[in-house]
Amino acid sequence: MRYLFHLPIDPQCRKIRILLAEKKLEFDLEVEPVWERREGFLQLNPACEVPVLTETDGTAISGGPVIAEYLEDAYDETSFLGKTPTERAETRRMVLWFEGKFHREVTANLVEQKVTKRLYKSGQPDSGAIRAGHSNIHYHLEYIAWLCDRRRWLSGDSFSLADIAAAAQLSCLDFIGDVPWEKHPDAKDWYARVKSRPSMRPILADHVVGTKPPEHYADPDF
Amino acid sequence: MRYLFHLPIDPQCRKIRILLAEKKLEFDLEVEPVWERREGFLQLNPACEVPVLTETDGTAISGGPVIAEYLEDAYDETSFLGKTPTERAETRRMVLWFEGKFHREVTANLVEQKVTKRLYKSGQPDSGAIRAGHSNIHYHLEYIAWLCDRRRWLSGDSFSLADIAAAAQLSCLDFIGDVPWEKHPDAKDWYARVKSRPSMRPILADHVVGTKPPEHYADPDF
Repeated sequence: MRYLFHLPIDPQCRKIRILLAEKKLEFDLEVEPVWERREGFLQLNPACEVPVLTETDGTAISGGPVIAEYLEDAYDETSFLGKTPTERAETRRMVLWFEGKFHREVTANLVEQKVTKRLYKSGQPDSGAIRAGHSNIHYHLEYIAWLCDRRRWLSGDSFSLADIAAAAQLSCLDFIGDVPWEKHPDAKDWYARVKSRPSMRPILADHVVGTKPPEHYADPDF
Repeated sequence: MRYLFHLPIDPQCRKIRILLAEKKLEFDLEVEPVWERREGFLQLNPACEVPVLTETDGTAISGGPVIAEYLEDAYDETSFLGKTPTERAETRRMVLWFEGKFHREVTANLVEQKVTKRLYKSGQPDSGAIRAGHSNIHYHLEYIAWLCDRRRWLSGDSFSLADIAAAAQLSCLDFIGDVPWEKHPDAKDWYARVKSRPSMRPILADHVVGTKPPEHYADPDF
């Protein structure tokens, strides 16, 4: 069996779960409390980070960006990167936007401060970081609206890894009620289209002890 | 002509310069002072970050990880990722190790504190971060030694993007004299092999106003 070692409110893990589902690849989920530094897990991934994918033959692939490229590489019947090198570069640019810039300016300031710090018992949330996250999210939602005004999906006319990466980030923020959708109707419309895909259902059914998502979280018609 | 917009002591830019040279692709370098947020550059890359590669037909590819995949994709006569999906995943895992974990724990704490902050005029160096960087670098150099004891190069028997990514990080640190090579002879031996490649010559000839590299910096027999 194929296994994915993961944590629920982790955008890289969510990206791989959505991508596996979109590629119709079966897998079992294993929650890995990385802060316990379990010996068996360190042998799979010396960086001791999730996600890690293990294939039926025991091959272990570590790290969200690495697993995504591996799945595109090894299971290329359906591609979520694009057809030409230039299309693939545009998809990867958008993925990097959401996993680099957006993650640094928004997700790290909100999800990591409010959720991850509690899980890792690594100190109190930093209120300055949280303020910055709430302020930064607006121009990113405006960028999504700007892109969707010019293209059907974030990196072009097809649903791609860019949409998956962006939805993985935003779904974590939405779980803690930190996305001001009402001020950004065009970004909300894009996210409603993503949420209605079957690959998103398991993400929207996630539970985390001590955190209750807002009413609209799992509703595609929010 | 192909252009690379770059900054000299930037590991992502150095990685692309080395990769372009290894692939024998000609290009001209343009220094881009990103902190000036030049309008023409923002049109190439709204994230306003280097590196950005422009092809002869005007196509712009933005971001170190994106450009590296693009060059492998568009110019596949010589590959620096590997032959099979599993080999490529191992190369990408090592690239992610050096650009994620190593960069966060070492390069960001030393190069960004000592060089980038001065360039961007974004405050004084944080002495706690500098201490952490000096402390963290040791186990990463031990990891390089451990890998080179088992493989000829960092991700396997061939020189790969993993060696390029690691050398790009370490060459920036070496430029400011912050690599304790004398305590890590096996890592030093690996770096001497990388330094002796023609693709490294332009990197070792870099000049930065206000910073003089140590005597051994450009010497392959250091």
